[in-house]
Amino acid sequence: MNTVHKRRSRKKPGTAPGTLIHVGEKKVDKERLTLIRYNSTDYEQLELEDLSKLRGLPQVDGVTWLNLDGLHNVELIGEIGSLFNIHPLVLEDCLSTSQRPKVEEYGDHIFIVMKMLYVLDNEVEVEQLSIIIGPGIVLTLQERSGDVFSEVRNRLINGKGRLRKSGPDYLVYALIDAVVDHYFIVIDEISLRIDKLDIEVFSAPHSDTIEELYLLKRRVTDIRSHVSPLRDVLGKFLKAPPDFISEETQVFFRDVYDHLLQVVESVDIQREILSGLVDMYLSVVGNRANETMKVLTIIATIFIPVTFVAGVYGMNFEVMPELKWKFGYAYAWGLMLLIAGVMLIFFKRKRWF
Amino acid sequence: MNTVHKRRSRKKPGTAPGTLIHVGEKKVDKERLTLIRYNSTDYEQLELEDLSKLRGLPQVDGVTWLNLDGLHNVELIGEIGSLFNIHPLVLEDCLSTSQRPKVEEYGDHIFIVMKMLYVLDNEVEVEQLSIIIGPGIVLTLQERSGDVFSEVRNRLINGKGRLRKSGPDYLVYALIDAVVDHYFIVIDEISLRIDKLDIEVFSAPHSDTIEELYLLKRRVTDIRSHVSPLRDVLGKFLKAPPDFISEETQVFFRDVYDHLLQVVESVDIQREILSGLVDMYLSVVGNRANETMKVLTIIATIFIPVTFVAGVYGMNFEVMPELKWKFGYAYAWGLMLLIAGVMLIFFKRKRWF
Amino acid sequence: MNTVHKRRSRKKPGTAPGTLIHVGEKKVDKERLTLIRYNSTDYEQLELEDLSKLRGLPQVDGVTWLNLDGLHNVELIGEIGSLFNIHPLVLEDCLSTSQRPKVEEYGDHIFIVMKMLYVLDNEVEVEQLSIIIGPGIVLTLQERSGDVFSEVRNRLINGKGRLRKSGPDYLVYALIDAVVDHYFIVIDEISLRIDKLDIEVFSAPHSDTIEELYLLKRRVTDIRSHVSPLRDVLGKFLKAPPDFISEETQVFFRDVYDHLLQVVESVDIQREILSGLVDMYLSVVGNRANETMKVLTIIATIFIPVTFVAGVYGMNFEVMPELKWKFGYAYAWGLMLLIAGVMLIFFKRKRWF
Amino acid sequence: MNTVHKRRSRKKPGTAPGTLIHVGEKKVDKERLTLIRYNSTDYEQLELEDLSKLRGLPQVDGVTWLNLDGLHNVELIGEIGSLFNIHPLVLEDCLSTSQRPKVEEYGDHIFIVMKMLYVLDNEVEVEQLSIIIGPGIVLTLQERSGDVFSEVRNRLINGKGRLRKSGPDYLVYALIDAVVDHYFIVIDEISLRIDKLDIEVFSAPHSDTIEELYLLKRRVTDIRSHVSPLRDVLGKFLKAPPDFISEETQVFFRDVYDHLLQVVESVDIQREILSGLVDMYLSVVGNRANETMKVLTIIATIFIPVTFVAGVYGMNFEVMPELKWKFGYAYAWGLMLLIAGVMLIFFKRKRWF
Amino acid sequence: MNTVHKRRSRKKPGTAPGTLIHVGEKKVDKERLTLIRYNSTDYEQLELEDLSKLRGLPQVDGVTWLNLDGLHNVELIGEIGSLFNIHPLVLEDCLSTSQRPKVEEYGDHIFIVMKMLYVLDNEVEVEQLSIIIGPGIVLTLQERSGDVFSEVRNRLINGKGRLRKSGPDYLVYALIDAVVDHYFIVIDEISLRIDKLDIEVFSAPHSDTIEELYLLKRRVTDIRSHVSPLRDVLGKFLKAPPDFISEETQVFFRDVYDHLLQVVESVDIQREILSGLVDMYLSVVGNRANETMKVLTIIATIFIPVTFVAGVYGMNFEVMPELKWKFGYAYAWGLMLLIAGVMLIFFKRKRWF
Repeated sequence: MNTVHKRRSRKKPGTAPGTLIHVGEKKVDKERLTLIRYNSTDYEQLELEDLSKLRGLPQVDGVTWLNLDGLHNVELIGEIGSLFNIHPLVLEDCLSTSQRPKVEEYGDHIFIVMKMLYVLDNEVEVEQLSIIIGPGIVLTLQERSGDVFSEVRNRLINGKGRLRKSGPDYLVYALIDAVVDHYFIVIDEISLRIDKLDIEVFSAPHSDTIEELYLLKRRVTDIRSHVSPLRDVLGKFLKAPPDFISEETQVFFRDVYDHLLQVVESVDIQREILSGLVDMYLSVVGNRANETMKVLTIIATIFIPVTFVAGVYGMNFEVMPELKWKFGYAYAWGLMLLIAGVMLIFFKRKRWF
Repeated sequence: MNTVHKRRSRKKPGTAPGTLIHVGEKKVDKERLTLIRYNSTDYEQLELEDLSKLRGLPQVDGVTWLNLDGLHNVELIGEIGSLFNIHPLVLEDCLSTSQRPKVEEYGDHIFIVMKMLYVLDNEVEVEQLSIIIGPGIVLTLQERSGDVFSEVRNRLINGKGRLRKSGPDYLVYALIDAVVDHYFIVIDEISLRIDKLDIEVFSAPHSDTIEELYLLKRRVTDIRSHVSPLRDVLGKFLKAPPDFISEETQVFFRDVYDHLLQVVESVDIQREILSGLVDMYLSVVGNRANETMKVLTIIATIFIPVTFVAGVYGMNFEVMPELKWKFGYAYAWGLMLLIAGVMLIFFKRKRWF
Repeated sequence: MNTVHKRRSRKKPGTAPGTLIHVGEKKVDKERLTLIRYNSTDYEQLELEDLSKLRGLPQVDGVTWLNLDGLHNVELIGEIGSLFNIHPLVLEDCLSTSQRPKVEEYGDHIFIVMKMLYVLDNEVEVEQLSIIIGPGIVLTLQERSGDVFSEVRNRLINGKGRLRKSGPDYLVYALIDAVVDHYFIVIDEISLRIDKLDIEVFSAPHSDTIEELYLLKRRVTDIRSHVSPLRDVLGKFLKAPPDFISEETQVFFRDVYDHLLQVVESVDIQREILSGLVDMYLSVVGNRANETMKVLTIIATIFIPVTFVAGVYGMNFEVMPELKWKFGYAYAWGLMLLIAGVMLIFFKRKRWF
Repeated sequence: MNTVHKRRSRKKPGTAPGTLIHVGEKKVDKERLTLIRYNSTDYEQLELEDLSKLRGLPQVDGVTWLNLDGLHNVELIGEIGSLFNIHPLVLEDCLSTSQRPKVEEYGDHIFIVMKMLYVLDNEVEVEQLSIIIGPGIVLTLQERSGDVFSEVRNRLINGKGRLRKSGPDYLVYALIDAVVDHYFIVIDEISLRIDKLDIEVFSAPHSDTIEELYLLKRRVTDIRSHVSPLRDVLGKFLKAPPDFISEETQVFFRDVYDHLLQVVESVDIQREILSGLVDMYLSVVGNRANETMKVLTIIATIFIPVTFVAGVYGMNFEVMPELKWKFGYAYAWGLMLLIAGVMLIFFKRKRWF
Repeated sequence: MNTVHKRRSRKKPGTAPGTLIHVGEKKVDKERLTLIRYNSTDYEQLELEDLSKLRGLPQVDGVTWLNLDGLHNVELIGEIGSLFNIHPLVLEDCLSTSQRPKVEEYGDHIFIVMKMLYVLDNEVEVEQLSIIIGPGIVLTLQERSGDVFSEVRNRLINGKGRLRKSGPDYLVYALIDAVVDHYFIVIDEISLRIDKLDIEVFSAPHSDTIEELYLLKRRVTDIRSHVSPLRDVLGKFLKAPPDFISEETQVFFRDVYDHLLQVVESVDIQREILSGLVDMYLSVVGNRANETMKVLTIIATIFIPVTFVAGVYGMNFEVMPELKWKFGYAYAWGLMLLIAGVMLIFFKRKRWF
């Protein structure tokens, strides 16, 4: 339910850094390794069983994109690391699915960790995406096969637009952009739930409402913790972008950064709305309880004095003149109605109902 | 009701950047394209059906201002983009009406997105305004025809003042200034409502009051989210203004920036006042409930012991000396009045009423 | 009641900048124009009807201080502007009494806007003060005639101290210092009211207390909004002071800045104290309500069971052995006293009273 | 009770800067002027009646430390100022005991204002300490004679350690360090009170508890306002320390700065703990009130239906079969016990007690 | 229970800096001094009784790591200090166990203070770790013998990996990394408790729940105060790392810094979750109290009017027609049932139950 849980599975403290251990749930049965190679004229997509096939491939111009779904095959990831000469700390971070989003430069590689958010069965799922960019190559590592990148793949296959004509920097942009676009879907989903709760709070608040508000607020806090570090590191990164990102593509990265700003702002507004709704809920529920208590108390209070009158004439004194009166009973009723009436008028005047 | 809604209509995630899709409501039936050309001596205003007429116009000295009301004619906007050589990302942002306010430089163009706020039928309306500034040309794109710029147009027609004598930088200033002036109107409208609620809270708070307070607070949060990013980006922009803004005009931009600071501060004070009013409302309502309960409970509490006395003398024991007394009944009344009196004095002493 | 009100009177949106319109209340019947000229040897003070007299005056060495009380004579202010060659935006800001405090440089002029705060008839009054400093000249524009500057004038007349020997920079310092000194008086006034409320909250809180706390808090927020921007701009200004401020005078400006820091800190502490008092009030009032309810409920709860006993022996069953007992009545009383006693002991044990 | 009070006594607004007026309470009957002169070999301590004796002293190598307890002798302070050539604003600040902590450079002097905090008769006392450092000389001005510096004096007399061998910079460090050490004592005192209140809140909260919490919180806010400005100015000061502070001593100043950081952090944690205790108190008290009300209401609610039964059989209808039954009375008791039992079970089930 | 306690034991204020006094609890009976010397080929571990043995050891290539468990042997620490030429302030800080985490450079030494957190008997223990790094040597001082470093020692003995091949900089990294890894264990422990309380709040909140929430929140605040200063100083340190840290190792320090960021973020999220749970608890408990009161009040309110009816027919007037009716008793019951029924329907309509 909360982000803190996921951190529970981690390697033993004091273990040597760069030790490859997969920390996180195993989310797919079998890892899937996909190789895409393209340039402005050609496009090739291969499902690989192991790396041997990759080694045998003829060298071509253009961009090589190697995507791995599933992180439990530690050996395979180690092989990939040594093939592409990747720093052990990078590999370790790829395998540990509780990484904080970050952008780091390691020699001629750039390493990006970010969180993919998507809605699955009405629940917001969080998955870690690692992107390693080297000369002419882009590696992506996901926890499971998803369809976040399918649209990017389609654009590659179609061969139209800037994507096929550009280098790996633009591919990385396209992937990050796809991830960030999914953030908006998650935000919209949450927005829908807020609307539902908004109506509920004002019309028919019950004890589930506050529970849902509370859980949604926690969820929003969670999302913020996944998105806002990315905003920060990307912002810092764009101030001094590395050489491999062409000036043309920087404009697009700036655009993604702008979207991230918008995501974080939306999330902050949602948090504020949820806080407001919690306060509103408490106020509405408190008002209702007050109203209920007031009406009930008024009824009780009117009957207490008249019951007293009835009690008085139920006393058994031998000498009680009223009891002998011909219209004594009528007088008693009159007295009781008078008292009730006076009290009602008094309450009315005080605007208690 | 909240800003998050508007973000719901957006292009499919993963779509290629620069794809022109209008995301947002269609707010006008027919787009309206207005061309204004002026210099210190001449002024010319034309309603254009399409761009062909624009291409045929003779080249003249001075400023060209092309304004488009309505963003649904994607094709026309594409044509404008290619005519003035505008970056595809800029056009995409113009069409997407949920942009965050920003100022960006694209080669020899400057692109400004901001929000127009105005009061329409007692509601605060939000509309996106995109301004693209190139050499000698200003393009403005609005969601619908409004009268925010009519005063600027009048000043252009009158031909007095600095406006006709200055370049496109001053026109841009005049337009932004007009938009920011409308922010103040919106703030004043909200201020009026706050005053109304202020009186209500202190004199006759009811459950609608808190609801209105809550909605107004949300509205103010909303406005802040439209204005404060503009303040930030304009502030950054003014630290290193581009060449095309003459030093003379920078003073005026600084003035607009100052107004934006003031708008954000006013909005922040309004939020604080609204928060204070919510607390005050809860306190007033709580006090009232307490008062009511206290008076009612006092009445009940006085009658409970005396009713007990009546109950005692309503018992049917054969031997009950008081019942035989000549002044037994009077004695019972006396006892009851005594008890009631003592309790009243006790409550009075305790300052419970 | 709140700052937002004052912003309501403003010029029509879209009006050309630099258009001179007085926005704000007219606070004096007739404007008053005072000219003071002095150097280390001479001092001269003149009340001017219009500027013609000023133009005719012989040029002398030293400082010229022109003070205007009342801002409604737009024409006169326009003349002053053209006489001293002041930027139209500066004049416009002088006339608009809802300016944010600021320090701006316009060519060889420096323009300072700040708020004067003083206590008048137990109310905190806010007034705008504009200071324009040029070579050898200081212009001050106030909304009405006040006595904030009288002490400065006296020091000028006495001719002692640094004031007469220094240039316009020191005069400006002296004026700002006088204004800031008045801030402390306002703070002390508020401090006095806080003390009064402090005692009230702890001894005899009533519903007016919370209202006053709330209004005082709003007033303090208001004051903060007038003072804190001045602190910020003065701080920035002192980092790179313009040439016209001699190094000797900078020390004094630093001293004023220090006082402003202190004012803002005091105001922040006052806000915190007021927030604490509001919480304390709610706690005290809640405690009282609880105490009241508890005592009342205890009384009711003790009588309810004994009244039941009385009710039982008021039943009319033909066979009710107790009724026939010789000491039945005494037994009933005994029973009732026993029940009441047990309950009292129980409540006592539970420490409910 | 609050810091704002102390600001009430201040010089008339508009008074010329540098005018020497003692603002603050007179805390000693007679000022005390102590001269200490030392170098690595000699130590000399003199009580001075006036400055004449000081002027007559032979010039020696080493550090001169002149300490003044009591600030009401304005004339004497003026003399000291002119003797050591101190800027008038510095003297004015020394005399005004409501100064904000600060570090300022005036030509070859450095002026430090800070607050001494110490516990006196269970109360936290605040006193202003001014330190003026010139070449070879250290002036300290305190409001009254205290024992904060006695340990420093002892170390000087003992002649061991670094103190006697170092210059005035190290003496200043030693003095500030002694003051900051006393901050920790104050913090520990407050910590003790927090512990006491902590136990009280959880075991036996009463209305005094909240009052004490509130007053302690205010006291902590107060202390923070005295310490945190010092931290800020010392931090800024250490970034570019003046020449007179030797590199060796800078390490020690950094140590003091570190202690100040720790003091402010401790104070912030104390504030947070106090806020938490206030919330906890309200929750505990609210819980108690709820518990009380619940038990009382349950008793009342059980007796209300059975009292109704008794009332029914107290009715005087001629035809009431039950009244004639032989075991009618027993039946009535049975009915009443049944009702009470059912209600008790129902309440038990609902876990209301 | 709170961090402030620990600060209570401290040296006398005004004591000369660099005086070696152990402030803190004595946590071990006998100090333990361990010497480890290693290079890529050899590893040697010695338990030392005193420093004499250390002096006699032959000089070897590689890294010397001297670890001291237990800080009460002030003399020994003084000897170590003079042997390795350590600044007295550093030694003083090592001995004072209430140091704020910091990184400081003293000539050719670097001094790091940090807090070790570990879970012991279900409690979070805090212990101070001082690391002093000199050329070829690493000194570590702990309050007691723990197993935080055992894994590092094992890696040294195994001789695999980077550790044995690298210099003291990498050893320091490995030690800090081990400490930070333990932070995650503490966070996970707290996360577990939060989960337990989370379930409790939503299912069966009782008064212990809020107490535990409060204590846990305080504990989290405590942990944050130990970790966040380390994050800050390490961040600053990494911006300009000293020469002795090789570029290769900097990558690893960056990794530790990244983990610290994550720890602080997790802690902040935990605080937010705890605050949310406190609010939720109050809301749930308030709701329960309201529900209880409402049901009880409804029962009371229904019986009050019908008891009144019974009271009426218990009056003893001689002329009361209903009493003579044959079906008077039945009529009375009918009337009472009718009243009860009407009230139930009314309550149902109002949705009060």
